[in-house]
Parts: sequence; C-alpha cells; structure tokens
Amino acid sequence: MSLSLNGVTLASVRERDQQDPLAHFKQRFALPEGVLYLDGNSLGAQPMAAKQAVTNTLDQWRDELIKGWNQGWFDAPERLGNLLAPIIGARHGEVSVTDNITLNIFKLLGYIWQQRPAERQAVLSEGGNFPTDGYIAQGFCRVSGAEHSFLPEDGDLAAHLDGVAVVVLSQVNYRTGKLRDIAATTKLINDHGAEVIWDLAHSAGALPIDLNGAGARYAVGCTYKYLNGGPGAPAFLYVHKDVQVGGWQPLSGWHGHASPFAFDADYAPAGDISRFRTGTHSALAYTALEASLSLWAEVDMQALRDKSLAMSELFRECLTDILEAHGIKDMTPATSERGSQVSLIDSQHGYAIVQALIARGVIGDYREPGLMRFGFAPLYLSFEDVWQAAHHFRAVLKSGEYQNSQFHVRSAVT
Amino acid sequence: MSLSLNGVTLASVRERDQQDPLAHFKQRFALPEGVLYLDGNSLGAQPMAAKQAVTNTLDQWRDELIKGWNQGWFDAPERLGNLLAPIIGARHGEVSVTDNITLNIFKLLGYIWQQRPAERQAVLSEGGNFPTDGYIAQGFCRVSGAEHSFLPEDGDLAAHLDGVAVVVLSQVNYRTGKLRDIAATTKLINDHGAEVIWDLAHSAGALPIDLNGAGARYAVGCTYKYLNGGPGAPAFLYVHKDVQVGGWQPLSGWHGHASPFAFDADYAPAGDISRFRTGTHSALAYTALEASLSLWAEVDMQALRDKSLAMSELFRECLTDILEAHGIKDMTPATSERGSQVSLIDSQHGYAIVQALIARGVIGDYREPGLMRFGFAPLYLSFEDVWQAAHHFRAVLKSGEYQNSQFHVRSAVT
Repeated sequence: MSLSLNGVTLASVRERDQQDPLAHFKQRFALPEGVLYLDGNSLGAQPMAAKQAVTNTLDQWRDELIKGWNQGWFDAPERLGNLLAPIIGARHGEVSVTDNITLNIFKLLGYIWQQRPAERQAVLSEGGNFPTDGYIAQGFCRVSGAEHSFLPEDGDLAAHLDGVAVVVLSQVNYRTGKLRDIAATTKLINDHGAEVIWDLAHSAGALPIDLNGAGARYAVGCTYKYLNGGPGAPAFLYVHKDVQVGGWQPLSGWHGHASPFAFDADYAPAGDISRFRTGTHSALAYTALEASLSLWAEVDMQALRDKSLAMSELFRECLTDILEAHGIKDMTPATSERGSQVSLIDSQHGYAIVQALIARGVIGDYREPGLMRFGFAPLYLSFEDVWQAAHHFRAVLKSGEYQNSQFHVRSAVT
Repeated sequence: MSLSLNGVTLASVRERDQQDPLAHFKQRFALPEGVLYLDGNSLGAQPMAAKQAVTNTLDQWRDELIKGWNQGWFDAPERLGNLLAPIIGARHGEVSVTDNITLNIFKLLGYIWQQRPAERQAVLSEGGNFPTDGYIAQGFCRVSGAEHSFLPEDGDLAAHLDGVAVVVLSQVNYRTGKLRDIAATTKLINDHGAEVIWDLAHSAGALPIDLNGAGARYAVGCTYKYLNGGPGAPAFLYVHKDVQVGGWQPLSGWHGHASPFAFDADYAPAGDISRFRTGTHSALAYTALEASLSLWAEVDMQALRDKSLAMSELFRECLTDILEAHGIKDMTPATSERGSQVSLIDSQHGYAIVQALIARGVIGDYREPGLMRFGFAPLYLSFEDVWQAAHHFRAVLKSGEYQNSQFHVRSAVT
C-alpha cells in the first residue's frame, strides 16, 4: 500500500485525527466493520442510542397501549421540532417534525398561495434541483390552478420573478453540492414581492444555518441524511413566527386542528406550528430521530463545518492527478460555495466506478446522468477514513476493475 | 366476586373460550399483565413478532446503510399492500400502504377531481364521521375551488348528490359503530354520477370486507387499530384496477414517479398503484406492520366476525340491567349493522366512568360528547376477558367510585 496519495501521507492524516475536536463523536455511532461510508448525504449512520430508544417505544406500545399517546408520542412533532431548531437557526415554536419533504412543500405552497397578492399566479421551482421539489410544485399547480415554471439551472433568478407568488429553492444542490446564500436570495425574492421555501435536505446537519438571521420565512428539510434519524425518518418544516398568523395549510387533518380532541365538524387550524400536522404519525419513526437529536445538541456547528470542508478538500487533494488522467470532471464548488460533498462526473464509467467502490466497502452514490457523489459526515468519519476511501478510488481506476461486467448491471433501485 | 352477571355465568364464558377456533391467536400477542384491553379500535395490541422485526430493520440500517433501500425498504408500500389486499377483498396491485388516512383521502379527492365531469363542483363528506375526513375535504376545497358540504348524520344520501363529484363515507361510524352497506351505497352514488371514497378505519381487520365484490373503486383505511401495525403505522389506499388508468394524484412526489431514479425534471405518474406514493417513507414504521400482516394472513375472517359479534353481544348482555338502572344509553346498532364495538352514552359521567375503568385496568376510550367506546379485537380477547371487563364495569357503577374527583381531571390528550 502506498503511504502517500498525490503527496498526502497517511501519517499526516492520522495527525489531523489526533487534533480533531469532533473525533470523539465517532464512538457514538454504530458503524459496520470494513465500510468507509461516504453516503451520509443519502442515509446517515445509526447513533448508538437509537436501538435502545426504539426498543423503549416498542415496550411502551406493548405495556401502555393507547396511553402511550399521552406519554410523549402525541407531542413528538413539536418536541423534536424544538430539539432541531437550534441546528437551523430557528426559535422555539418555529419547527415541526412531520411527514416528508414532498408533503411539507405542498403544505407551504398552499399556505402561502392563499395569502398571496391575487395578481401573482405562478410557482417557480428550480431546474436541476432534487426532482421531488418540482414534482410536488406541479401537483400543487394541477389542483390549485397556479402556473408552474422552472428556473433554468444557473438562470438569473431576478429575471424569472414576474407574477411569481412563491419559489422553491435548495440551499445546497443535491448534484453539484453548490451552496446558495439564503440571506441575499431571500431578500432578492421578497423585494420582488414573492416568497421562498428553502429546501435544506442537503444542508441541515452539514453546515451552520441561521434561518432567523437570514430573514427566511419558510423552509423544509430532511432528518435521515446528515441528522441520522433513520431510513425515511420524518422531515421538518420551519415557519417564521411573523408569518404564523392566520392561514390554513391545505393538508388539514385532525392533528393540526386547534382542538384535535373536541371532534368539531369544521376544521380550524391550530394557532401555532402544530397547524402544519396532518393526521396520525408513526411513533416508532420519531424515536430513533429523537435519540439522534439529543446527540446533535452537543455539536459545535462551526467545528463541524471546518471539518466538513477539510475532509472534502482532503479527498480531492488525494485524487486530483488521477481524476485528470482519467478524464473525470470534478464539479465540486469552491469551499465558500460548497455543501458537504464532492461531486465527480464520468458519464461513461460513473455508475461502474461507484459499484466497484461499493464492492471494496467504499459507499458513495450514483445519480443519473454520470454523477458520483461522496458525502462527508464529520461526526463519524475520520480523516484517515477519507484517505483510505481515496486510496480505494485510485486503486479502482488504476486496476481498471470497474470495467468488470458485474459492475455494469443496474439494479431496480440505486 | 359474583360468578354471574345479569345471568351470564363465568363458567359459561370459559366454556365458550374452550370452543373458540381463534383462541390460539392470543398467545401471538404481547399483552401486559392485569389489563383488559377493549381499545383495539384505537390502537391494536403488539404482535409478538413485531419486536424482532423492528430490531432486524434497525440492524439492517446499521449494517447495510443505504443498501437497505434495495433490500425491501423501497418496495414496502406495494409489498405490504399486497399482504393487506385479501383482508379487504382487493386484488394484487390494488392496495398501497402509505402515509396516513388524511393524506390518502386528499390524494383520492385530487385524483377523482381531475377526472370528474366539469359540471360537478362539490365534495360531500359525512356529518358525524371521524372529523379528519371532513377536515381534509375542506382543505382540498380551499385549494381546488371545489365546494364542500356535509351530509347530515342519518340524512338521505340520494337527496344530497346533485352536483357532487365525490363523497367520503366511513364503512363503520367511529362513534356509533354503525355499519354501512358498501355495495348498495356505492351503487346509489355511482348511479347518481358521483364517486365514493370509503374510509375503512373502523372496519379493516374487524369484519370481512369485499371491496371488489361490492364494486368499490376507492378506499382508505388504517393499520394501527384492528390490524396491529403499531402506533401511527402507515395507512392504506385502495384503487380498483379499472380506475388505475391515467390520472395524477396531486401529492406527486418522487416515489410516485414512473421512473423515480431517472431524476427527470417533470413529473410523470407511475402506471400502477405506486403512483399514490409521495416522498420517502419510514422503513421502521413498515416493519412492525409487516410482522402483523403475516399473522393476519392466517385469520379466517368469517370466524373473526362471528367472534366479534358474539363478544359485543356478551358484553351488552352482562350489562343490560345495570346500564338501564343508571340511565346509560346503549346506542350499539343491531348485529346486522354493527362494527366491532359497543357504544354507550352518558353525557354526565361518561368521562369519569372510563377513567375509573382504566384505573382498574379495563381500557376503553372516551370521545366527546359523552361517548364510551369499547372495541372487541377477536384475535387477542377471550370471552372471559369480556366477562371480566363487564364485571369491573358493574363494580364501578355499583360502588360509585367514578364519582371520585381524580377521575374528573381531563388530560390534554385523551
């Protein structure tokens, strides 16, 4: 084994791990042997505390039965919302953990839509964004009569805001990892008389976010990626206190009613963030996430950001020469505009390279067309992990093993 | 202890348990000691197999990480839908297990709405139904421009169908336990040119249902009550094969796309039942339910129905005299029109009586105004359990212990 990758020595990265103020978090995660996991941007690793937490909820179901709803299950959306709030710069009462991102975007579209100036008839979503954000905008437009259009990728936002009531944007692009400035972009959109819903799927838990400080009014995001809530854990929704007055989100179910247990015939939205609930939620799905959020309460987000950027830089530094030699394009943005991932493009071999890496225990992911994504979760990755992953990457390219036919078979779900 | 309640002897009910062909199922459930659980209509008891199933999914998350989505998580909505289909008389490919009832009603409203005759502008929901069905109909109307109205409880349905595109009805009323005839009612509504969405929350797993045979096209239902899927387990949605052509449900997220992993910019609904998915679902929430549905596959639904009615009759028989003496109204329908519950009304003392019973380990539930509900889940209740519960009920009334002030304090969530 080479002890230097493009000049970066193993000894040097071990030294960095010695100095890492976040290194101690790794032991709080249950990680499988022999795996270098660079896909925390798709599904975060399991906190050690998750298993006991879920087991406790199962025992509560068994022993307390219906009474469990009075013992923490019912209040979970707001309780977890308040645990999550500091991670995204929100205040107590501004965050609900509920449903999934798709549904939460629909709620906010409908909430904003009913309060819009009547002359604004359009919903703008982002070309090149994660597709579900556009899909649900299109679904909303079909029932509401709103018009949907796409902002072209790298298009001039200001030139696309005429007649627009609401825009859906991601803070970090899921493909490129490119970071938008929430404060400047929100101001631009609001100054044009429109609202913006921020999708934080690829930024919450990946970098410091200050929604209140940035003047953001609406956001949604994910808890199963960087926040380690477990596969398909419930999403979150943020609404600034100033815009929690009046309004009715259209997915109005009994849990969002002002008096859910009065069983009134007519809907009346709750006066607080709980109006963004729909119907009954899975108690089990919240439990693992709550265990993870308790851990996240200890994290210094600036230290996390520093380590995230240092890791993505390290990975690139270990690979620059060989990527160039193989014609693989590194589309990772500059650190000032980067989320927590490295994005490489090889439209011919990308899929097979990712499969060959997986066969070696290095888990990244592949997205059509041609995109290899490698995410860096600072809480459970060491600098040596990143170096070892780069070492495997070099070996896969040098050996040509990605050309093996087994790595070209597409599974139904990738 | 009296060995006879209103003439029903303990010996006679023990004899019935000896003859019960479903008695063996009780040992497949994890039931707490000292509890007589008559609230399976709110939250079903835990199947023994649930804990191991959930633990396996946790281990899968830990060990397989993102690969878990290729190993059963992604396909869970349709796989569990197919497990559930025989219980409600549906065919393979007609049922999806997804989201909650509130959201599934919205999807079907939007799906039907876009295909309606243009002159039909109204959505009719049922007065006295579980409120979330009306709440979500009202939410749908706010964004779609449809008009919402209520069918008065016991109102003449045929007289309310002018201009109606879609009706939302429950098969079993959550308060009274009264059963509607799906076949006759669907025919009446369809003959008037409207569609009907059936809510099976209080009937799925409580009695035999034949959606296909009854000509039903659309239904939703619950898996955490009689089907024992766990607190807030995902709901189901049924769409008859004949009406799975074309159409777009408005909560269109990436999991419902024809090619979810192609990441196309525009939404295109899947050609099968998976079009009714929204975004990413909780893998953990499906696991306990799958364990339960495997158990349900062994159940003879007619035997279940026979036992359910025998149990509700037994409970009433043990109480008739004392209910009358205390002025408590028994509003339970005749067996031919009964779900799987006994419904008693005491607007003055109902809440306190239920609390006093809970203090004795007899769990029923209370719904405003004045309603005491007792549900009978034939898989884990014995005839002796029912008799013992009635015994406690008599004791609570005779002793007057419900008048104790501790039983009058309302908790935030009941």
